[in-house]
Amino acid sequence: MAKVDTSLPAELSGAAAQLGAKHANEHPLKLYGGWFCPFVQRTWITLVEKRIPHQYIEINPYRKDPEFLAMNPRGLVPTLAVPVGADGKDQRPLYESSIVCEYLDEAYADGDKYGPRLLPGGPYERARARLWMDHISSKIIPGFYKLIQHTPEKPYTLEQAREDLHKNIRALVKEMDPSGPWFLGERFSLVDIQLAPWAKRLWLIDHYKNGGTGIPKEGGDEVWARWRKWFDAIVERPSVKETWSDDERYVLAYKRYADDTTNSLVGQATRQGEKLP
Amino acid sequence: MAKVDTSLPAELSGAAAQLGAKHANEHPLKLYGGWFCPFVQRTWITLVEKRIPHQYIEINPYRKDPEFLAMNPRGLVPTLAVPVGADGKDQRPLYESSIVCEYLDEAYADGDKYGPRLLPGGPYERARARLWMDHISSKIIPGFYKLIQHTPEKPYTLEQAREDLHKNIRALVKEMDPSGPWFLGERFSLVDIQLAPWAKRLWLIDHYKNGGTGIPKEGGDEVWARWRKWFDAIVERPSVKETWSDDERYVLAYKRYADDTTNSLVGQATRQGEKLP
Repeated sequence: MAKVDTSLPAELSGAAAQLGAKHANEHPLKLYGGWFCPFVQRTWITLVEKRIPHQYIEINPYRKDPEFLAMNPRGLVPTLAVPVGADGKDQRPLYESSIVCEYLDEAYADGDKYGPRLLPGGPYERARARLWMDHISSKIIPGFYKLIQHTPEKPYTLEQAREDLHKNIRALVKEMDPSGPWFLGERFSLVDIQLAPWAKRLWLIDHYKNGGTGIPKEGGDEVWARWRKWFDAIVERPSVKETWSDDERYVLAYKRYADDTTNSLVGQATRQGEKLP
Repeated sequence: MAKVDTSLPAELSGAAAQLGAKHANEHPLKLYGGWFCPFVQRTWITLVEKRIPHQYIEINPYRKDPEFLAMNPRGLVPTLAVPVGADGKDQRPLYESSIVCEYLDEAYADGDKYGPRLLPGGPYERARARLWMDHISSKIIPGFYKLIQHTPEKPYTLEQAREDLHKNIRALVKEMDPSGPWFLGERFSLVDIQLAPWAKRLWLIDHYKNGGTGIPKEGGDEVWARWRKWFDAIVERPSVKETWSDDERYVLAYKRYADDTTNSLVGQATRQGEKLP
């Protein structure tokens, strides 16, 4: 979840604007999002992957509309408004993008309508997928912010931030199905979706930080080769591209991260060395 | 998960010793635990609630046996060794107690053998339960450690730590079914198990910290009254009592937390103001 900077335009652009236009009509299942927020993109990718009918509402959290706040006083994005009750007119809020994605997979389980389930059916394999989703949330994503928000004043060096990110990405890659392209092999899953928005944003580290991510673009060992196979597949995945606004908007949005002056919740937590919200 | 202090005896005592004796025989489903660790207790409570046949192995993480490390090089407790393959002789490790508990509920789903499921069947209600399990993990449990590890050198006061814990407990209580006794009403669930081990340890804050938890033992508003209804029920729940060693052992174990000299992973993370592992 994230609060977006007030100065950013609260509008989709590029491919995401086209997708948003297709999902502008009133629908009882509503995703309240911000184009810029990777946690929103994670949720939106899941909706798109499963072809779930929904309404997308772009919302600037600092200029919240009363209807949204009445439904979810917590007021963060992403929020999914879920229709409940016999007529589906009552709405209840769900948040925490990992929980929302798993909800969508469980609530829209009809394979004929919504395609293959996004978590494996076997309890052990499902638990293992959740373990690596947790690794992505608790290790890789904080590492992304530690690196992009690095400034010379930090108690750690840029190189340390880079090594930390590499270590945690490599731990994930070693657990990937060897053939791929996805974490589970040919089967696309919530593990892939969990990391997709940050994979899609890695180039912003190259843009803003001296030496970039340091992940080899070619060569390196077999772990990096396997990473590139996954990475190349995920950034080309239609659901990932369709939920993406124009590149230059992200350059603008992430400048405040790169300068470590963002007022987003994840950005502030990273600055203060705290657990991400 | 936690590493236990090396000086602590690596043995169950009291009620837990009796339970352990009943689960000492070789079994393909093994829980590697430490009597002292609340994350272990969370997992063990789930096994007991569902009457799942298992073997309990008390392990001191600093004197690990090679068999355990061969199965799970990560080497933390709790680890659940899960039998896989046709003959069930292969074992794979699962860890992260919340994920392990959900695994147990899914893998042992036969209501005739294992009793009612520990998460609701409806996707929305299940997602809501996961949201509040997440609140317990990310807000209440860190607050427990912030309070019990408070020392005068901390950048926050004892009173601030207490208020923070109260705020997060009260947010949970307001979401509880009004009649109770459990979070979901008459139905006991993983939400209750998620917090049970720390509820069972709250008296250690009263023991070690001036002013204790500050939670009113009687009176207060209806939120605290509802809290006491849940609290009284959980500390008397058989699965919670049966997985508990002698009180005085915990007094010994938590002295290092109270002095903020523990070398457990959660303790160190709290001391350094970092996210819990």
